[in-house]
Amino acid sequence: MKTIYITRRETFNAAHKLFRADWSDEKNNEVFGKCANKNWHGHNFEIFVTVKGVPNEETGFVINLKDLSHILKEYVVEALDHKNLNLDVPFLKDIMASTENITIKVWEIIEEPIRKVGGELVKIKMVETENNFVEYFGGKEPY
Amino acid sequence: MKTIYITRRETFNAAHKLFRADWSDEKNNEVFGKCANKNWHGHNFEIFVTVKGVPNEETGFVINLKDLSHILKEYVVEALDHKNLNLDVPFLKDIMASTENITIKVWEIIEEPIRKVGGELVKIKMVETENNFVEYFGGKEPY
Amino acid sequence: MKTIYITRRETFNAAHKLFRADWSDEKNNEVFGKCANKNWHGHNFEIFVTVKGVPNEETGFVINLKDLSHILKEYVVEALDHKNLNLDVPFLKDIMASTENITIKVWEIIEEPIRKVGGELVKIKMVETENNFVEYFGGKEPY
Amino acid sequence: MKTIYITRRETFNAAHKLFRADWSDEKNNEVFGKCANKNWHGHNFEIFVTVKGVPNEETGFVINLKDLSHILKEYVVEALDHKNLNLDVPFLKDIMASTENITIKVWEIIEEPIRKVGGELVKIKMVETENNFVEYFGGKEPY
Amino acid sequence: MKTIYITRRETFNAAHKLFRADWSDEKNNEVFGKCANKNWHGHNFEIFVTVKGVPNEETGFVINLKDLSHILKEYVVEALDHKNLNLDVPFLKDIMASTENITIKVWEIIEEPIRKVGGELVKIKMVETENNFVEYFGGKEPY
Amino acid sequence: MKTIYITRRETFNAAHKLFRADWSDEKNNEVFGKCANKNWHGHNFEIFVTVKGVPNEETGFVINLKDLSHILKEYVVEALDHKNLNLDVPFLKDIMASTENITIKVWEIIEEPIRKVGGELVKIKMVETENNFVEYFGGKEPY
Repeated sequence: MKTIYITRRETFNAAHKLFRADWSDEKNNEVFGKCANKNWHGHNFEIFVTVKGVPNEETGFVINLKDLSHILKEYVVEALDHKNLNLDVPFLKDIMASTENITIKVWEIIEEPIRKVGGELVKIKMVETENNFVEYFGGKEPY
Repeated sequence: MKTIYITRRETFNAAHKLFRADWSDEKNNEVFGKCANKNWHGHNFEIFVTVKGVPNEETGFVINLKDLSHILKEYVVEALDHKNLNLDVPFLKDIMASTENITIKVWEIIEEPIRKVGGELVKIKMVETENNFVEYFGGKEPY
Repeated sequence: MKTIYITRRETFNAAHKLFRADWSDEKNNEVFGKCANKNWHGHNFEIFVTVKGVPNEETGFVINLKDLSHILKEYVVEALDHKNLNLDVPFLKDIMASTENITIKVWEIIEEPIRKVGGELVKIKMVETENNFVEYFGGKEPY
Repeated sequence: MKTIYITRRETFNAAHKLFRADWSDEKNNEVFGKCANKNWHGHNFEIFVTVKGVPNEETGFVINLKDLSHILKEYVVEALDHKNLNLDVPFLKDIMASTENITIKVWEIIEEPIRKVGGELVKIKMVETENNFVEYFGGKEPY
Repeated sequence: MKTIYITRRETFNAAHKLFRADWSDEKNNEVFGKCANKNWHGHNFEIFVTVKGVPNEETGFVINLKDLSHILKEYVVEALDHKNLNLDVPFLKDIMASTENITIKVWEIIEEPIRKVGGELVKIKMVETENNFVEYFGGKEPY
Repeated sequence: MKTIYITRRETFNAAHKLFRADWSDEKNNEVFGKCANKNWHGHNFEIFVTVKGVPNEETGFVINLKDLSHILKEYVVEALDHKNLNLDVPFLKDIMASTENITIKVWEIIEEPIRKVGGELVKIKMVETENNFVEYFGGKEPY
């Protein structure tokens, strides 16, 4: 069986901060550094979403990228683009807006819609800056 | 054993379309969208080919990249660069020219030549645009 | 007067060939090389369109990028994306589909719509591959 | 005289919004679209600063890039990185935080420090996203 | 358990050559080609270091990137940046300075310091040029 | 007259150092910093060479990129790739190997060969790292 992996990229620009109200300013600065700036900062995020499967015999597709792109536009870009990740996004409420946590939450939001169009979500890569990104395999540990 | 993975990139520019002659124009447009344009469209493809192994004690090489590059130039770039992927490439005849299918066929073409120079092909990544790419592990499912 | 330059990028994927029917195949190959392949090849084009002006006092904008993007979507992306540049584009009919000629024609098409929303087009950069691009200043020669 | 241009890149991540308190929400949305989101959004900004001059005979340098980098770290990165461009930056107070206006203000801030180390500032390029950037030549219009 | 992977990029610019003193010049040229140039050549290397773990409940972090960055600055950038990889780096003495061998040695150097701050090193990607890179999983073979 | 600018990119990987034998080590370190490392360091250089002209009526070309690429391969890549810029390159002997000086010397080397194939060299951009590059217009000052 010729299982293959296909990835779609989308982008969104958002504000956030890393700050705990139950900590002193000193502790926030010590742990989160500049990311604790009370008035927020922001990033151009890139999200790469990977689906695996066997290519359909008629179309040659693992998944129709139009379907995958529509899901990402609706559940990710609409929800996160030009937003404040701490304040404006219902599914991120009450969590630390670290790239790790954002990525895990996005997985929970898009896994089922992708399954409904016949795709199996296997990886999300979230790029915060040219110097750091996270990768999530739904909790699996390929390495 | 210190197994390590080495990757070589090559590029090629090609035309293709996604279109089934046994479907109506309506169905082609519904499924393939703009990719069904009868007069073709095209891309700057990037291919990343990964070989794994233990570095040779004398050279420090898993594989001599000159050998890998020569194989890719002969079997991939010569065959696909400035070509029409639906019409000009014998090993792609009679398949849907989706990135998934092209990648699987390229694997079949280069696996043996790479083995002959002592390399074990383990991954091909094929980038079609900045927004989509496929990855193939010879059918294996690392995640 | 604080004149400043603002640039918007769009992308399109298209097929083309460089071929003269009034030349022999030998001459076509000699001059155009692989680009003369009769069955076409293609590229992921990037177009960067630059407008200059003084920022508006109320908005801080030289031009509203939404307006510029709409013009580029309508006149460039709709016209060229997933198209054959030799066959499918009325404003490119009967010219050699070199990147130079395409860029000059795009200038003629978008200059007036940009002027209508208050912008002064001063540069188009068209990227064909990572190794070559052209820049056009409407015929002016800044250097 | 062999005048040559040298450019240094720095990056900063910041939040901002485009919003006029003296306008209705409707007008803000109509003009600024998603950029008017009250709770801010943000970007990974890249700034490219260009100095021109004749290479020094002993060093081969137009300007010592260590000096240029120190100036940019002190006046730009320290001031703007992980900041809110509307609230946290004294030299951006009371202006619309458009990329155009930010760039013009940065010019005013760094021109004199660069002159003091012997450099002539001739261009700032400020990249907001992969799809838009501005270029400022101190008000000059090379094209 | 929501294991997730986080990656930090650092860069360094270094000289090296691939050359065996116990081989003839002919054999060195045959095997290593231009890389055997006696007077060295060099690269802008990029290193991507990946740590896996479960996000901390209070911080949302797998590892504090400041800690990871400090380790990479101390053990990698300080050691390798603007150095000759064959001559200047104690932990690379007496090995072929291939990208494979450099990467394996860097793993051995940074694995323990990363563990001390609570991180589990699982991958190093070392990019030598835009056309080649290696990936090392500590000897594991995920695919 | 529709003058247009076309640019070709080539790459080369080389070692160099910035060091004056007539200066003390202290002064070398003070002025050149890490770049003074006696055992060299290196970079992946990118060179972008721009030619201007009016597109030929028959070909649509300002210059045949095959001709331009051949010149760059012969005079730049052959001369500089996998070389030591201080020791191995006759036309760089006895100059400080700063990016500024290298770029000016490359201009002197390629201007005439480009003219012989009918092209007018107007700009060289030389990228040393992602954070710095120089641009040379043959001494002209467009801004």
